[in-house]
Amino acid sequence: MQLICPQWLLSMADSEAPLENQAVLIDQERIKAVGPRSELEHLYPNAKIMELPNQVLMPGLINTHTHAAMNLLRGAADDLALHDWLQNRIWPLEGALADDEFVFDGSVLAASEMLKGGITTFNDMYFFPEQTVRAALAVGSRVFAGIIAIEFPTRYGNGPDDYIKKSLAARDEFAGESTVHWTVAPHAPYTVSDDTFKRLGLLAEELDLQIHCHLHETASEVTDGISRDGLRPFQRLDKLGLINERFLAVHGVHLNTSELEIMAQKGCTLVHCPSSNLKLASGFAPTAQALDLGVRVTVGTDGAASNNKLDLWDEARLGSLLSKGYAGNATAWPAWKVLKSMTVDAAAALGKDHELGMVKSGYFADMISIEINDKAHQWPINNLVSKLAYSGHSRDIVNVWVAGKLVVDTQQLVGKAADLEAQTIRKAHRVWQTRIEQVS
Amino acid sequence: MQLICPQWLLSMADSEAPLENQAVLIDQERIKAVGPRSELEHLYPNAKIMELPNQVLMPGLINTHTHAAMNLLRGAADDLALHDWLQNRIWPLEGALADDEFVFDGSVLAASEMLKGGITTFNDMYFFPEQTVRAALAVGSRVFAGIIAIEFPTRYGNGPDDYIKKSLAARDEFAGESTVHWTVAPHAPYTVSDDTFKRLGLLAEELDLQIHCHLHETASEVTDGISRDGLRPFQRLDKLGLINERFLAVHGVHLNTSELEIMAQKGCTLVHCPSSNLKLASGFAPTAQALDLGVRVTVGTDGAASNNKLDLWDEARLGSLLSKGYAGNATAWPAWKVLKSMTVDAAAALGKDHELGMVKSGYFADMISIEINDKAHQWPINNLVSKLAYSGHSRDIVNVWVAGKLVVDTQQLVGKAADLEAQTIRKAHRVWQTRIEQVS
Repeated sequence: MQLICPQWLLSMADSEAPLENQAVLIDQERIKAVGPRSELEHLYPNAKIMELPNQVLMPGLINTHTHAAMNLLRGAADDLALHDWLQNRIWPLEGALADDEFVFDGSVLAASEMLKGGITTFNDMYFFPEQTVRAALAVGSRVFAGIIAIEFPTRYGNGPDDYIKKSLAARDEFAGESTVHWTVAPHAPYTVSDDTFKRLGLLAEELDLQIHCHLHETASEVTDGISRDGLRPFQRLDKLGLINERFLAVHGVHLNTSELEIMAQKGCTLVHCPSSNLKLASGFAPTAQALDLGVRVTVGTDGAASNNKLDLWDEARLGSLLSKGYAGNATAWPAWKVLKSMTVDAAAALGKDHELGMVKSGYFADMISIEINDKAHQWPINNLVSKLAYSGHSRDIVNVWVAGKLVVDTQQLVGKAADLEAQTIRKAHRVWQTRIEQVS
Repeated sequence: MQLICPQWLLSMADSEAPLENQAVLIDQERIKAVGPRSELEHLYPNAKIMELPNQVLMPGLINTHTHAAMNLLRGAADDLALHDWLQNRIWPLEGALADDEFVFDGSVLAASEMLKGGITTFNDMYFFPEQTVRAALAVGSRVFAGIIAIEFPTRYGNGPDDYIKKSLAARDEFAGESTVHWTVAPHAPYTVSDDTFKRLGLLAEELDLQIHCHLHETASEVTDGISRDGLRPFQRLDKLGLINERFLAVHGVHLNTSELEIMAQKGCTLVHCPSSNLKLASGFAPTAQALDLGVRVTVGTDGAASNNKLDLWDEARLGSLLSKGYAGNATAWPAWKVLKSMTVDAAAALGKDHELGMVKSGYFADMISIEINDKAHQWPINNLVSKLAYSGHSRDIVNVWVAGKLVVDTQQLVGKAADLEAQTIRKAHRVWQTRIEQVS
């Protein structure tokens, strides 16, 4: 057992005030106790003490929408209209390159970038999810992989049946791993049939999984849906039984008031990806209105091809700023809620708020420590919550634990993960950049 | 003389392609030559060589709108409507605290934060500009200080005559410093009279200075101006003769098409402060339209009370993303233009594009080097320009030169500046946080 003794504890469990003189006892994968340091030292005299002077300990961040493999495509498709971006760049690149090796290498880079920036969990959607899982295990992240479905063939398979079969086999393969979780992940209303949606909706119930789906990203997705089905995509999914407490609507840029009201009532989540929505000029998600109506709003970086970085501090800050600007209300999405969106609310979105998203007894020991020291960009700290929400930086993360294991030690991955990161960086430089250039 | 030999040179002088095997010869404060390394080594055999392996050398970034002193108020006023923010928080705090000591200490923190993030020049507007200048000199930054004018009394003086007199005396005091420049800085149309504007307009002509002014930040500023003067503030300033090639319109959120056309025609600059505009819910500046019409658009962080960080990489990226989102055009403000906005265009805005903003013979040796190595968040680099524009990070800055002097060496301020930074951080923690709390 190990007793972690930070200068400040921000457990996200109750009070907004960071506490001093607290300690966190880790026993294997979980937090066994949180309380006054002197008390825990007395109760557990044999626990090994780890001091974190000038550091804030808080729950690890949860990135609720990624395509980790796409880290390899960072900078390969910028300043293009969505149609051009997708049809003339991303799909040809993926068609030529997105095999199991691509997914593993891209996911290693993404998981490394995220973990060192304090993201302990990412909720992913991509082909070859078993490779994303392997990468997450090798780097040390917690992952929610998607049982992916899309109607057309890719290198991963020849259609939804094949994708689902392969994803389910991967789920079985990693069933013993406590840091590997699954969702059902129908790609989007414009790429998935009614039958497949229904099938995945049932599968989600049977296996107790969340539903991870792009929805209402662009205005044309909605108008095309109406032309094709006589229904807005949201209405279609509602009719098919998918709009429930399991549902994560990714993007949700073009959701109207009645749709937001239904989401609030049913307990769905709106996963906001502000950088991606701006970069691809998709529009402004109605996040302030959603929060007002009681919809759970979380944040996702999306993939590196539409962001171009996987930094949840930047992304949540941008979500908050954008909600203020778009709603014309500077009080929208305030600092404390920004931190909740990345932790407790994100855990609830993934159906795991009983064991993720807080530093609390019984929860997984997924935690990060943030240095508050020595650097001008940090000071003064008139308000620690605001400091983390509005001027938090990936570069200030010092240590990261996932399931009780120290996976980032003083800003570096540990052991074999560090070697894998270095190898994969070299390969990205020497191999992948050339392959990508050849497709261009 | 010193020969700087980076892996890549991005001079911003002509081509978008970063060049290899180039070198930059520094002689005292200026760049004496830029060219193939082998040639310069042959021509200047006695020059001391500095190797920058795995680093990109480019011009230092120029932050075209700051209130550096306000770094002390970071986190002291968040999630508040503009009226509340200004009248109930910022003004009372400034009224109680903003003396010469406050301005010096805040500016030391701001200049340190900026310099380590690659900002070699900042264009400031605040009371006690002589203290901002002292701080910039002590830390090592280049500064454009403002000859400030506002109609009401503050701790700095009893009105515009007094402010102008004191600022001009400060200008004389630092006349020998090649890194200290001045602008005239009328605060805003709603705080400055016609007489003062006219006087500063004439002063700008006489002393050959740019005009640094907040303009059309909020919708109510415009409607109030119409009620009071029968004119939009822009029209009023145009009538008073201030709208010319010297003019930097800060914020410009509520500029209409004809105003943008006049700005393009007259060669004015729109200084975009996206974080601040979103945080205070001021609206969306029409930057994509401005760029289309040929207006020079640059970027400012604004002060830390309305941002809350002074990071030009984040700010320029956000400016670009927001312009795409607001215009519904993903091709707006592309990557190369993002880098220009922070360098050559910003130098032109300040009337110094003949000696700042490029790595070019005869120019001031204001440069930064950026590490491209070893970290997952950097890779792959499918496009170096996009990498800097859309995933550039302050934390990747390694070395910084201002006027030929190495002021940041391997991510740290050098010599006395480092001591001053450390002292000021301790004072921010022990003294200023308490004073700020007492005003709250």
